[in-house]
Formats: sequence, structure tokens, C-alpha cells
Amino acid sequence: MNNPFFKNKGPLKFSDIIKILNLDIKKPDRDKEILDIKDLASATDADITFFHSKKYKDAAKKTKASFCLTTDNLKNDLPKSCIALIVKNVLVSTAKITSILYPDSVNDSFDQTVVLINDTNYKEKVDFGTNVLIGDNVSIGSNCKIGHNTILEKNVVIGDNCSIGSNNIIRNTYIKNNVRILDNCVIGKHGFGFFPIKNNNLRYPHIGIVLIEDNCEVGCGATIDRGSMSNTIIGKNTYLDNQIHIAHNVRIGENTIIAGQVGIAGSSIIGNNVKIGGQAGISGHLKIGNNVEIGGGSGVIRDIPDNTKVMGYPAKNIREFLRDNR
Amino acid sequence: MNNPFFKNKGPLKFSDIIKILNLDIKKPDRDKEILDIKDLASATDADITFFHSKKYKDAAKKTKASFCLTTDNLKNDLPKSCIALIVKNVLVSTAKITSILYPDSVNDSFDQTVVLINDTNYKEKVDFGTNVLIGDNVSIGSNCKIGHNTILEKNVVIGDNCSIGSNNIIRNTYIKNNVRILDNCVIGKHGFGFFPIKNNNLRYPHIGIVLIEDNCEVGCGATIDRGSMSNTIIGKNTYLDNQIHIAHNVRIGENTIIAGQVGIAGSSIIGNNVKIGGQAGISGHLKIGNNVEIGGGSGVIRDIPDNTKVMGYPAKNIREFLRDNR
Amino acid sequence: MNNPFFKNKGPLKFSDIIKILNLDIKKPDRDKEILDIKDLASATDADITFFHSKKYKDAAKKTKASFCLTTDNLKNDLPKSCIALIVKNVLVSTAKITSILYPDSVNDSFDQTVVLINDTNYKEKVDFGTNVLIGDNVSIGSNCKIGHNTILEKNVVIGDNCSIGSNNIIRNTYIKNNVRILDNCVIGKHGFGFFPIKNNNLRYPHIGIVLIEDNCEVGCGATIDRGSMSNTIIGKNTYLDNQIHIAHNVRIGENTIIAGQVGIAGSSIIGNNVKIGGQAGISGHLKIGNNVEIGGGSGVIRDIPDNTKVMGYPAKNIREFLRDNR
Repeated sequence: MNNPFFKNKGPLKFSDIIKILNLDIKKPDRDKEILDIKDLASATDADITFFHSKKYKDAAKKTKASFCLTTDNLKNDLPKSCIALIVKNVLVSTAKITSILYPDSVNDSFDQTVVLINDTNYKEKVDFGTNVLIGDNVSIGSNCKIGHNTILEKNVVIGDNCSIGSNNIIRNTYIKNNVRILDNCVIGKHGFGFFPIKNNNLRYPHIGIVLIEDNCEVGCGATIDRGSMSNTIIGKNTYLDNQIHIAHNVRIGENTIIAGQVGIAGSSIIGNNVKIGGQAGISGHLKIGNNVEIGGGSGVIRDIPDNTKVMGYPAKNIREFLRDNR
Repeated sequence: MNNPFFKNKGPLKFSDIIKILNLDIKKPDRDKEILDIKDLASATDADITFFHSKKYKDAAKKTKASFCLTTDNLKNDLPKSCIALIVKNVLVSTAKITSILYPDSVNDSFDQTVVLINDTNYKEKVDFGTNVLIGDNVSIGSNCKIGHNTILEKNVVIGDNCSIGSNNIIRNTYIKNNVRILDNCVIGKHGFGFFPIKNNNLRYPHIGIVLIEDNCEVGCGATIDRGSMSNTIIGKNTYLDNQIHIAHNVRIGENTIIAGQVGIAGSSIIGNNVKIGGQAGISGHLKIGNNVEIGGGSGVIRDIPDNTKVMGYPAKNIREFLRDNR
Repeated sequence: MNNPFFKNKGPLKFSDIIKILNLDIKKPDRDKEILDIKDLASATDADITFFHSKKYKDAAKKTKASFCLTTDNLKNDLPKSCIALIVKNVLVSTAKITSILYPDSVNDSFDQTVVLINDTNYKEKVDFGTNVLIGDNVSIGSNCKIGHNTILEKNVVIGDNCSIGSNNIIRNTYIKNNVRILDNCVIGKHGFGFFPIKNNNLRYPHIGIVLIEDNCEVGCGATIDRGSMSNTIIGKNTYLDNQIHIAHNVRIGENTIIAGQVGIAGSSIIGNNVKIGGQAGISGHLKIGNNVEIGGGSGVIRDIPDNTKVMGYPAKNIREFLRDNR
């Protein structure tokens, strides 16, 4: 799915980039236009890209980008068609350029575009409560309910037969059909991503969305953050209990069941038919397989293969956990 | 206490039941009326009951129900006066019949019966904030305060001298006297109970309520789910800190103190004078005795007898925990 | 910083104190006025103080207070200028007197002083959403945003360039410049502090505030309680992720990063440049040094010195944790 919500405010001129990053470079045409910032593989010659780790050497050699944010150490792996822009911190510079191209993706202040639903076309189409607010670029399917004080901030698509409860705040979120969101949730805000800088951290942009597939249920008090470069995804028929936190870029499979107060840290991938007990926590950047069961209170700090039951902190095979704790 | 809130939409005809469950049965009078669905012991000859496990054999033998949802294996334990209706999954079928008799107990969409408190008789009687909404079948005692944006959805009783804060959503809840609910709570929604079915889980009905006894305090951001067949109960003078999750059917005793971010899973019973430290979790279907102390961060996965101090995950005697972790 | 918010309703007459505490004392002038209640060191001869533990013997000997709540065991350490008032429970009596002098500091019912921001002078100065409410004694700097349904209850100071999201409830809080509060937070309510008394606990007063320094970010669903006698403080450029609970009297340093669902119990002190992983819990009255890293899911029950990495429950040196859990 392409990003339906964040609009590229480009193009930038190369001279803008020089200025933003404080570069001391004179060679290329300062008026050359740059359309977008993309990863090494998907950038075209109209784009700028970034290369911050040897891991991506092979992609770097083949990039079609005209410009690349990188370091002195890495620059020689770039093709001659690509001009290396040497910066101190590649990811910080990438965040800065992305922020200029997608300014709406950095800081999530409240949405000032909203109006009361009573003043929109949805007045006739939707069952709605008191004080429901609707922002720009919101679409709601047929046979939907939206509870009291709920705010659909800008960039929300809701399918058919959805029930959205009260006191929810949703933005940058694509909700498919037959989904139920209970109350007090905040869905689609930026994740907890920034570069720590003394006295004034630098937030990085979040141009991903939250995607909630058919037949899901999201309990009360959930926070589901949108992705930074990729999307946060809740698969079909997955049910979340109350007070759950899903961080940016997390992808959860289908038919998965997650009990109360679970937290899933950024960029972890959860399989299909997974059961996660209450208060369990899953560290970031992990891969949890299909048909996995994670006991309540577990702290998962390693990948878990398919068809495994784990428990404990750190989580281990449940038989081992129970034997060690007789 | 009898269920004051959920109204039985019965009677059903036996022919309705045949249709709902897709049964191939011709014998009994298809026009016979069925008033209610009850457990084996409390059903009368006007009711249907259910029998899904050998554990309940003795009750089955004595049931007065005219019909019983059961399996081929179990049917022979029923008396002759009771017609066995053989189904694939007894609890799923029970949920289906209950859902028909109590349709309001299955899905908790926002309450469309609410009006602004300013348009009710409580306008004179209650100290209330901005945008307070009151649903059908709500009763409020004397000397109560209700904060801004709070929604008392249908089926709420509040006693005397209660202080309800702002941004709360309450339904199907009985609150006695001198109770204080702080802010941002959701109380009385259905619990996290459903039958996992590929692509489309089946929710089961929650016909219980939440009962909060005299002198309790509930902190900010609590979620307290109502019971499925029984009630969720918070005993007298019990205090809950912020961000606590109490699942369906949990019963908590008197004078108990529960610190922040604790979670108690479904159907567990907590005694009197219990102290539970922050972030502790208690698994479902456990019995925690009187005068128990549970250390912060503990994960309780077994019953705890009276007068015991435990800590750890899994929780064990606190002296043992401290000795093992010097 | 002096307490900017709670106004002393004194003076009390000595006869009032006799009555409140049910004392049987006839000696001193019953009309003598008492201005304030202060600790042993800071009380003047116009104040009452309290002395409940041998630990404070040295301060007791030098107190300038005219009256002191204490016990028969301790009274002989007081100077002759100070009249000992013998009570059963010194802290309970202290709470009672403080409650009379600072009645607004005990129970935090919703603020009835609020009006719609549209009816205040901030209408022109602030970017604000729908249904924003402003209480007595609120001050907002330049270039601020305040989201929908947010309630700034009484006693709130907000600096310049702050972004306050939607559905927040804030009171007794001092927010400096460039701070961002996301959505659904409750900040500045009293902490979870009371004397357990059978059938009817006695809340103690909270006359502290919440102080949030420059450049902080507070994620969605946070609860940050104000202090009881001291303040709850979030240091400069400290970032909190979603669903975090900060109890009363906690002090967090600068440039600290706290991930989702972390809980910090009362009166703990966290240093500068600390990183705390998701779902970690920190017990009360601990001291966590500078440059400490606490792994996700950890349960910290002991002080942690500077420059240390810990993980586990109870938290220990991270190398030890990983070695023990290979």
C-alpha cells in the first residue's frame, strides 16, 4: 500500500539542501531539483538517498540516486553518477531532509482543520455522538458508529460496519471493515523516535501510517503509533485488550490475541495465531513466529520461532520456565 | 444482588433455537417458549441450560431445565425431563442463545441514548461540569459531583457523596456511597471474552455488572470490565492507583490497596486487606487470600494463602525471593 | 521554587487545633494563632511542627516552632520554647492540620472554576481546539497550542512555544518553554497517598506541584502526580513515551529517555542522561544515578550508582543478567 496521507512538499533545490545541512560543497548545479528522499534501492535520479552502514554496500553500488548522504568512509562504494554529500551523522541529516519534504510528519500538534461532524456530509451517513470532530481528508464507510468526543483528525479512512467508541483520537490511520475501536485510544500519532541531543533532542519524521485490517478489535486506552518509514499494521481479526501499547513500525499478523497492558516495542513483527498474555513486553526489532504463545508477564528479548510456547523474563521455553520455578 | 441492568428479551420459541443453532431436531413442540438461559442448578423448566464438562455431572443429573445444550458424550447424565440438544461446541452455542436473549450485552458501541445533563432532572441536584452526558436508566444520589466530558452511559447507579472526575465513561455499573473515581476511566465495558474463530472471532455476552462498594477510590486511567456471567466487584474502602486494569469477573475484597499499573486477569478473587505493589500482574482464575502482600513487579501465577508476603515472577515467598536475589 | 499554587487558609487558633485533634490540653493560650505547619527546621515561632522519629532528634532540639505534634517517647528532645502536643499517630495528626490549612490539597474533585477558553483573554493569544476549558489562576505564554477537550484546571502555568494536545487534564502544574504534552494525560492530580484506616482511609494532603522543565515531551496517556510536601519534577529535555506513570515526589533529571509503560513509584530520584526501557518499574524512595541504563521490563528495587547498565527483576548488572540467562 502506498502512503495515502503524507504529501511530499518537494521539490527542493540542491542549494536548499546545502543550506539545511550546512555543507561546504560547490560542484553541482545549485539549481538542480530534488523530488524526494528514498532508500538506496528505490531512489531514482531525481531523488536523494542515504547510506550509513557497510551493511548496505551492495545496494549503494547500484543506487540510481543523484545525491547520497553518507560519510567519508563509505563514499567510495557509490557509483560515479551519485554525488556523495559527506555529513557528520547520516541519519540526522536524513531526518532533516525528510522533515523539510514532509513537514507534517514531525510534530503532531492537535489538528486545527477539524469541524463538528454535524457540519459535514457524514451527518446523514454515520451514527454519531456529541462533540465528534472530523479533520481534513477523512473518509467513513457505510453503517459506521462514532462515539462521543471522538476526534478523527486529518488523514483517516474508515471502512464499512465499523464501531468507533468515545474519546478516541485517530489520525494517519487506515481502518478496514468491521473493525471495533473501544474508548480512549490514541491511534496514528508519531512514534517515540528522535536523536538524543543534549538540551534539545531532534525528532525524526514519521511518514508511515497505522493500518488496521478487517474484523479487528482494539480495547480501551490503546496507543498505536504510526510508522516512521514503514507502516504499523494490525492483521485481520486480531484482538487487543485494554491498555495496550503498540510502538511504531510494529506489524502484527492475523487472528492474534493480545491481553491487557501488553507493550510491543518498535519494529517488532508478530506472526499469525499468536497469543500474548497480560502485561507481557516484547523488545524492539524482534521476530515472533506464527502460532506462538507468550505467557502473561513475560519479557521477550529474543526472536521466537513458529509453534513455540514461552514464558518468563527473559522469556524461555514454557516447560523450562515451569521446571525452573517449581 | 440481582442483575439490575440487562433485560431479558425472551421468551424464545423452541423453533427459534433450532434455527439459531442449525439443529436437525424435530421431536419437541416447536412452539414451546423458553424464558431464559441459566446454569444447570438454577434453571427452571421454563429455561434452557448448558452442560459442557464432566465436572458438572452431579448438577446435570438434577437440573430442572427442559432443554440442555450438550454433547453426545455427556447427554446420558441428563434427566429424562430434559431434552439434550447436541451441538458441536457447547459454550459457543450458549453464547449464541445468550446473545439473542440479551442483545445489549455483546457489543458495546457508544450509547446513543445519552443527553446533556443540563436537559435532565439532575441539573438541580448534581454539581456537574461541561459536556456531561447521561444515558437511559441512570440514577445519581445526593451531594455528587460529575466532572467535565464524563459520560454516564446507560445503566449506572451512583450513591450519595460520590465524586466522579472528568473524561470518564461508565456503563452497567453500580457505585455505592462516598466513592471517588478520578479521571479518564472506562468502567463497565464488556470484558475481553470471545471464542477465537479464524477470520471472525465470536464475542460472548457479558451480562454481569461492575459493583463498587462504599468509600472506594479509583485512580486515573483505570479500565474495569464488567463480568460475563457474574459481576466484577471492588470491595469497601479499596483504593486503586492510576492506570490499573481489572478484567471481567474479578472480585476484590475490602480495605485493599493496589498501586499503579497493576493488572488483574479475569475471574481472580482478591481478599481483604491485601496490598499489591506497582506493576504487579495477577493471572486469571486465582484466589489471593486475606492480608496478602504482593511486591511491586510481581507476576502471580498461583493461588496465595492468607497472611503471606510474596514477590517475584513467578511470585514466591518474599524471604525466599530476597535470599535468592541478594 | 516556592509553592505558587496552594494558598494557606490560616491562621488557626490553638483552640481549633485542640478541637481537630481531640486533645485534652488546657495550658497554653487558646487564642494563640498558628500560621502554618512546617518541618522541624523551617518552622518559626508562629508555626506548628511535627516530630515522629528519633532520626530527627537533632532538628527537634533546635526547632523554633511554638508547638510540635509528637509522642510521649520523643517529647523530651524538644526545647522548652516548644509545647509538645502528644498524639497517637504523629503523621495522621500532621495530615489533619495540613488539610485544614490547605483544604484544596486533599481531594481533587473536578474544577468548577473553569470557563471555555473562548470566554477568556487567551482567545486571541493561543491556538486552541474545541471545548477547551480554563480554570482560575492559569497563565499561558506566547505561541502555544492547546488541543480539543483539554482542561487546564486551576493553578497551571505554561511557558512559551508549548504544544498541549487533546483530552488532557492538567492542574497544579508549572510547564516551562518548548514543552510538548501529547494526548489523554492527567498531570498534577494528588498522588496515591493516604493512611490506611479500616473502612475509611484518610487521604493526606498534597501541597506540592508538578514542574516540567524546558524542551520536555510527555507521551499519550501519562499520569504524573504532584508531590505531597515536595514537588514532582521532570528535568530539561527529558522525553517520556506513552502510558507512563510518574508518582508523587519523583524527580527526574535532564536529557533522560523513558520508554512506554514505565512506572516510577513515589519519591524516587532519577539522574541525568538516564535511559529506561519499556515497562520497567522503579520502586519508591530509590536513587538512580546519572548515565544509568535500565533494560526494558526491569524491576528496580535498589539504588543504582552512576554510569551503570542494569536489567532484570530484581535489576542487576546487565552483563550478569545476560550471563545468567544465556
